[in-house]
Amino acid sequence: MPNLQNQIAQANALRAMHRGKILVLPNAWDVVSARIIERAGFSAIATTSAGIAFSLGYPDGQEISREEMLLAITRIAAAVKVPVTADVEAGYGDRPEDAAQTAKRVIAAGAVGMNLEDTTSVPRRTLADLSLQLERIAAVQEAGRALGVPIVLNARTDIYLLEVGATENRYGEALRRLAAFRNAGADCLFVPGLRDPETIRRLVAELQYPVNILAVPGSPSIPELEKLGVARVSLGSGTMRAALGVLTKITQELKSTGTYANLEGAPSHAELNRLMRLSSEDDPH
Amino acid sequence: MPNLQNQIAQANALRAMHRGKILVLPNAWDVVSARIIERAGFSAIATTSAGIAFSLGYPDGQEISREEMLLAITRIAAAVKVPVTADVEAGYGDRPEDAAQTAKRVIAAGAVGMNLEDTTSVPRRTLADLSLQLERIAAVQEAGRALGVPIVLNARTDIYLLEVGATENRYGEALRRLAAFRNAGADCLFVPGLRDPETIRRLVAELQYPVNILAVPGSPSIPELEKLGVARVSLGSGTMRAALGVLTKITQELKSTGTYANLEGAPSHAELNRLMRLSSEDDPH
Repeated sequence: MPNLQNQIAQANALRAMHRGKILVLPNAWDVVSARIIERAGFSAIATTSAGIAFSLGYPDGQEISREEMLLAITRIAAAVKVPVTADVEAGYGDRPEDAAQTAKRVIAAGAVGMNLEDTTSVPRRTLADLSLQLERIAAVQEAGRALGVPIVLNARTDIYLLEVGATENRYGEALRRLAAFRNAGADCLFVPGLRDPETIRRLVAELQYPVNILAVPGSPSIPELEKLGVARVSLGSGTMRAALGVLTKITQELKSTGTYANLEGAPSHAELNRLMRLSSEDDPH
Repeated sequence: MPNLQNQIAQANALRAMHRGKILVLPNAWDVVSARIIERAGFSAIATTSAGIAFSLGYPDGQEISREEMLLAITRIAAAVKVPVTADVEAGYGDRPEDAAQTAKRVIAAGAVGMNLEDTTSVPRRTLADLSLQLERIAAVQEAGRALGVPIVLNARTDIYLLEVGATENRYGEALRRLAAFRNAGADCLFVPGLRDPETIRRLVAELQYPVNILAVPGSPSIPELEKLGVARVSLGSGTMRAALGVLTKITQELKSTGTYANLEGAPSHAELNRLMRLSSEDDPH
């Protein structure tokens, strides 16, 4: 069971990580990936909803149940000492009370932060009305207050990912939404799909608030993003997809030369056994 | 729910795969890895107990419960059309009735084959008496008969892995055990830890029976193993550990140059979404 005092301290620590050196989050999809990221010295663990969904047999996009997603998050949070922030998509339900219920479950799972997408599931993955989204943001914060854990809310707009409206209007609408999320008290503003350095610089300057950028191949590097004023960088499902890319290479090599070069350089069975044998009470570093 | 007639056909098909062209099994640790292996054209899916244990937060070696292991196997079996053979370690319990219960659960999970290690858990991971192991093998086969599914049993000796006894005595003891497993009706004889081509050739020639070799970097290639007479090659946790090796590289690159080269070449989010959207009723090829 998560310890309340520890969760309060972790939530405050995670919030503070948005105000100093850039926060870098290579996302985890299961327990061993979280342990590897923690061991590598990252100060918090973010989960990837797509990675967890793929691993358990679902496409991304809230086709997994809230129960199953939270069970995976619970396992991860129990296995690491650093704060965990949960990718819980659009909150598993369109109503503010669904978002509140999800936030309560995130805290019960031992995490102290969460993402919230501004999409609705009916109709499928469309942009939510801004007024509804602000109600959902308020509901998440109220849920945190009710449980006594100041949950760190990463409020996300999917305008760029969903390619909503005319290209030339997207920046303005993203800014309008993110400013509203900021004014509603979200802790960080997440805008996946945005890669252009000048647009990122302008957005950060106009918002004057912590911004989360999703890094993909071709994105500005971490030092560049830090210079642009970005507070937080995450990799989304990129980590897990890269891991699966190796599996594809292994299968291709087996089918062609029948050799095992793509197995080389992996952590040994003994090393991973040691890594998994650490209890969450031990110091994994 | 698995379909009995389909499982009988799959068990017979998997058994026949040990008698023709070499059977190559890059092991799966979750649903998406199983789907990728199936899509790559492999004719059966073998699970890796270590990979599933690491993913769920346990060291390898029966520290995970039978329930949790079987739940993961159930997800995998439901997601692919090819036969699934389950790595269920030493059967989750030392008594023949434990092995029988595990075999019944493997069939209920939708799999049609299983590994059985000749180790006991008390004292921890020691070689089982041969007479006990033969009772366990018989119990697995009887469990298959009771449920009407002729489960394909891959009987494993851990003499080489556990480095039991003097080096010069291992081959003789491995041969004695594997011959006994063969005579008890096991379908394939698995000897992980054996890599030397001449020893493999000799073992296959003396047993005159399907032998499973665990391939690791440095093992003879698939074509070489086929020439040595090997019937089946699996990669164990090597696939999953290689995937985690990429995660380690990603974290190192983030910490050093802050770039994302190790994310390149991964399957896209859209590609994996399509792969996971296939129901087990669809043709995944």
